Amino acid sequence: MSRATLSNATNADFPMRLRDVAGQVEARLDALLPKPHGHQSVIFEAARYAALGGGKRLRPFLVVETARMLGGDLNAALDVGCALECLHVYSLVHDDLPCMDDDDLRRGKPTVHRAYDDAIAVLAGDALLTRSFGILGDANLEPAIQVKLITGLAASGGMSGMIGGQVVDITVAEGERDEALITELQAMKTGALIDYAVRAGGYVAGASETELAALSSYARDMGLAFQIQDDILDVTGDAETVGKAVGKDANLGKATFVSILGLDGARKRAKELGERAMNSLEPWDESAQTLRDTVDFVLERKH
Amino acid sequence: MSRATLSNATNADFPMRLRDVAGQVEARLDALLPKPHGHQSVIFEAARYAALGGGKRLRPFLVVETARMLGGDLNAALDVGCALECLHVYSLVHDDLPCMDDDDLRRGKPTVHRAYDDAIAVLAGDALLTRSFGILGDANLEPAIQVKLITGLAASGGMSGMIGGQVVDITVAEGERDEALITELQAMKTGALIDYAVRAGGYVAGASETELAALSSYARDMGLAFQIQDDILDVTGDAETVGKAVGKDANLGKATFVSILGLDGARKRAKELGERAMNSLEPWDESAQTLRDTVDFVLERKH
Repeated sequence: MSRATLSNATNADFPMRLRDVAGQVEARLDALLPKPHGHQSVIFEAARYAALGGGKRLRPFLVVETARMLGGDLNAALDVGCALECLHVYSLVHDDLPCMDDDDLRRGKPTVHRAYDDAIAVLAGDALLTRSFGILGDANLEPAIQVKLITGLAASGGMSGMIGGQVVDITVAEGERDEALITELQAMKTGALIDYAVRAGGYVAGASETELAALSSYARDMGLAFQIQDDILDVTGDAETVGKAVGKDANLGKATFVSILGLDGARKRAKELGERAMNSLEPWDESAQTLRDTVDFVLERKH
Repeated sequence: MSRATLSNATNADFPMRLRDVAGQVEARLDALLPKPHGHQSVIFEAARYAALGGGKRLRPFLVVETARMLGGDLNAALDVGCALECLHVYSLVHDDLPCMDDDDLRRGKPTVHRAYDDAIAVLAGDALLTRSFGILGDANLEPAIQVKLITGLAASGGMSGMIGGQVVDITVAEGERDEALITELQAMKTGALIDYAVRAGGYVAGASETELAALSSYARDMGLAFQIQDDILDVTGDAETVGKAVGKDANLGKATFVSILGLDGARKRAKELGERAMNSLEPWDESAQTLRDTVDFVLERKH
């Protein structure tokens, strides 16, 4: 029996807080990504083109709000969030390449390889990934915490995390995809970075192992709910609102949570996961309101 | 007037030492790169295919030998060298892609995108780059030293370092390439990681700022000599010995040190740089013998 229930509507302050943190992320990324200069100026341009001016910034939001809940330093959390966002953006740039998903539109504008070319897109992704670790190395934190953040990001973004998920997504045949497989796939591809986001906020604030475990449970369930909602939007959304191509997975006959569970089944599953995510926040009561609102937001989002 | 002179032949012990360290790097990389497992096993395979079984391992050799000269921990230096080698290998995998240099042969075997496909090559490169920082985060060193190593690797491998050099190489028109430009290009593309290698060995051993500056001077000159020798081998070598396509730059009419300075001029320039590199090692006398031998090796190498 789940004790928490989802509220009927997202807390009125939440959209404002999300936008506020997104604005801070934008400003900080602008400072952390060098302005174009030198004979290689196109790579600075392309990296900034990819990283600036878009996105919900959900991952940095989770870093900052988890750190806030636990009383951590918010400027350091913002830098860690920006490092994570650079890594997330690199993965989008590479996933969009013609040899992978071959997408033309991302965050409402042409993908990097369409705006520049394939080589610059590969290198801009490489550059953003490299810069992620540089930003963590420069963050104003105890070195021991920085090392935890760096090791964690390498694990969550690596072959047993995000990259592993993308590999499963592009290599496993449709016939082998059941709910267990796409759950495993998404736990790596999307879930690992969402999990990292809340743990990173915890590291910044010096969270205990017990707290980190509860945060991970929250993030794993919320991350999967996020992905299910993504699959739902792929069927029900329109490209203009969503900001990227929609209907693509369905048109490709690709197994998704919607194709396996049906639209109602997928919505029900997302709601169950959302309730379980809420329950994991029990140790924090009122101070976890923003992380609770995030679950509502994820389930209600239209883009 | 330069005081040091190049020896007529590489020290007899040197090739054995280089092979010995290369063997240690191979064994340690084998342990540091996970064995294939799970639904994403192909990515572990591809990363290991790219990183294992080849290469002079010059960069890890420089890390280990610099640490040895300064009395640093050699196991930690080996791990740092392996991290650097993973980053170097990722850059080769991505540079070989069809959208960049489109090479079929690397270290005497098919390039990753030829052995697998383009998507796996992009992801294997991403995975090796990510793993580099994970290895540094796991190394048995003081956290403050780890952070220096990580920040340094991100800078040397990033948009103002190695990636910047590759961007200049693929974007600047032939007509604009003079000696100054290709020197700048190579200082970033090849020089930055060779510089990092010796500084990393210095960090492991707790080198002073003065020592690090002398090591950097050594590496910058030696790295450029290395690249000039690469251009010489592109004209004078054969593919079997060199282990990759040769004559390519010349056939493409691409400006190299040889096309700009002529073969004799390039050899003379490499020799001058080698002598200057030797002079930078003066603070260390006999203990720097291996780093001196490395200069001879770089100038005399046939592959």
